[in-house]
Amino acid sequence: MKIIILKNALVQAIQNVHKAVSSKSTIPVLSGIKMAADESGLRFTATDLEIGIETLVPTLIDDEEIVQVKEAGAIVLSARFFGEIVRKLPGKTVEIEVKQNYLTIIRSGKTEYNLHGLDHEEFPRLPQVAGNQVFSVQSDILKDMIRQTSLAVSSEEIRPVLTGVLFTLKNGNLKFVATDSHRLATRESIVEAPPEMEFTNVIVPGKSLNELGRLLADNDVLVDVVVAENQVLVKMGHTQFYTRLIDGQYPDISRIIPTTFKTGLTVNTKELQGAVERASLVAKESDNNVVRFNIKHDRLEITSASPDAGKMSEPIDEIQVNGDELLIAFNSKFFMDALRVIDSPDLLIEFTGSMSPFLIKLPDNPTYLHLILPVRIY
Amino acid sequence: MKIIILKNALVQAIQNVHKAVSSKSTIPVLSGIKMAADESGLRFTATDLEIGIETLVPTLIDDEEIVQVKEAGAIVLSARFFGEIVRKLPGKTVEIEVKQNYLTIIRSGKTEYNLHGLDHEEFPRLPQVAGNQVFSVQSDILKDMIRQTSLAVSSEEIRPVLTGVLFTLKNGNLKFVATDSHRLATRESIVEAPPEMEFTNVIVPGKSLNELGRLLADNDVLVDVVVAENQVLVKMGHTQFYTRLIDGQYPDISRIIPTTFKTGLTVNTKELQGAVERASLVAKESDNNVVRFNIKHDRLEITSASPDAGKMSEPIDEIQVNGDELLIAFNSKFFMDALRVIDSPDLLIEFTGSMSPFLIKLPDNPTYLHLILPVRIY
Repeated sequence: MKIIILKNALVQAIQNVHKAVSSKSTIPVLSGIKMAADESGLRFTATDLEIGIETLVPTLIDDEEIVQVKEAGAIVLSARFFGEIVRKLPGKTVEIEVKQNYLTIIRSGKTEYNLHGLDHEEFPRLPQVAGNQVFSVQSDILKDMIRQTSLAVSSEEIRPVLTGVLFTLKNGNLKFVATDSHRLATRESIVEAPPEMEFTNVIVPGKSLNELGRLLADNDVLVDVVVAENQVLVKMGHTQFYTRLIDGQYPDISRIIPTTFKTGLTVNTKELQGAVERASLVAKESDNNVVRFNIKHDRLEITSASPDAGKMSEPIDEIQVNGDELLIAFNSKFFMDALRVIDSPDLLIEFTGSMSPFLIKLPDNPTYLHLILPVRIY
Repeated sequence: MKIIILKNALVQAIQNVHKAVSSKSTIPVLSGIKMAADESGLRFTATDLEIGIETLVPTLIDDEEIVQVKEAGAIVLSARFFGEIVRKLPGKTVEIEVKQNYLTIIRSGKTEYNLHGLDHEEFPRLPQVAGNQVFSVQSDILKDMIRQTSLAVSSEEIRPVLTGVLFTLKNGNLKFVATDSHRLATRESIVEAPPEMEFTNVIVPGKSLNELGRLLADNDVLVDVVVAENQVLVKMGHTQFYTRLIDGQYPDISRIIPTTFKTGLTVNTKELQGAVERASLVAKESDNNVVRFNIKHDRLEITSASPDAGKMSEPIDEIQVNGDELLIAFNSKFFMDALRVIDSPDLLIEFTGSMSPFLIKLPDNPTYLHLILPVRIY
């Protein structure tokens, strides 16, 4: 293999795939990035066997030469070491030449590195995903759906299905659900899908989705999502992202979400966020992280207390309350997580009693829903 | 105590003193910040018994009211917790009121905190430093002297004196020396001192100096340095910084610094820095971190090699070399540390053989000197 590539394109390609590099595998080749050069350009691949990322740097972009392939071939280089070196190279272009015994020469400006590479034949092939179940969604919408749900996945491996986000699709409506059994987040969106396409129990690991979220651009370009038996493939321009799915049956959540409420309030997001954040500073000094809402007919009082640290109170006046007065307590971390992924200026919160789950909704966007279980007040 | 203070001034004052708060003391009061209000304003103090910082927020600055003292008094509040709370307060001003049993009420906007304070009488008094040995130096120069020498102090407690920076003063010339016995940094500056003032073995802990460096402003305002038997006091405007000194006799370094050289070269700082940094990426993959200079009559070649990772080479051509050709090896970390604190565009490096210490000098500034011991090339 012998190629010359623009340094910026090389840095970007390594950055795209490096999140899939295994950090603790006992298989040496998995700590590397595979580069393969052919007439189409230079293809970078990394995988930890849970996720895989492949990105092609094409020979030309808008008539500008990005990669010049002088000799086809492939090599695997240590991701960490190669990444560090490339970022520090002095020149605008980088020449990579593979000699005998995987010896790889990297030249840029007057700098020359001789690196020990690994056999690309030992690098696992990414799975071939059969392409019959494909839908298309805007990159920024998919990114938002991930951001607004993946925070609610469980971090405990006891119930593996809860460490993933449930994908369902019916009548062109894609829905994400995540819950750790203390809170639940859902987000829906209409996508471009064949009318008969439908799936109900596709569980994507939350960690994989966070990596996918990083790759997705904040623009309205469509990305293709291929759903197969054991894996999902996302195609974004020259980059492909694979993840395995989680086995098992996701619990039925339809009965958990209340459909009526006894107390409803509309409140300014930023104001509430600030108050709960200030209350949480006291709450997190004690074990349970509890913040209370004391809801009167035109007023919400936010309080917290810790035996060691002290207590805090802050009213939000002149808010709109419908229904009964209520005193309710909850884990402030869950509440703050939910508010962090909300972009709407106002919130709708619906309660059905001090021991029932409450809902955070967006007045301007019915596709989002966040449910939080309260904690008992002693 | 009852005061009203501008939030920004409160945040700044906490930030000034918090570096002196003890992070692991068994004495609870040392994890706090003492606030004391009187007619001059609100005074903040923190100490870990090694260093102490005191800062006064005066009642008025340029006719603007900064602190309004309604009732004099004092309290100690948990530095971490209080600092977190203050940063998040919603209002432009903050009211702090101390009630019975050290209960402290903090009000800002509509937020109210009730915090458990501690008895200020238990807080240690900062030492009274006798003021007969005082010199004055520009804030930015003192900051630079610290930056250029403290990196060379030893991190090993086996020889405590080497964990400090040696201060000496003679004929108005202040000199800092630091060495960990692998490298040595010195920096001098003319300061304003009484003609008879002189000291020779004042050893200031490197850690203390790093905290002092953070407090020093990048301007030419004079700061006063008071040197006493066991401590040094630095007065910067409304802020005072104390540190204890290290006991013991600093080694005589005068014979270590070569006064002649066999090979001298002048080289562009940035170019050399880049090359050594690139070489160090390979060097740090092996234990010894070694980078080599191969000096020819008009050319410097920088190389490094690691059995696992590979090797690197980069020439710097057309440089000015005086004297013999030379092959020398050294710990690249030391070299990079030295270059990081140099602002000159060019460097002068003087060698006296492959097993003798070499000097890094600045062509435009004879007050700075950095010495590095080479390593043996097998």
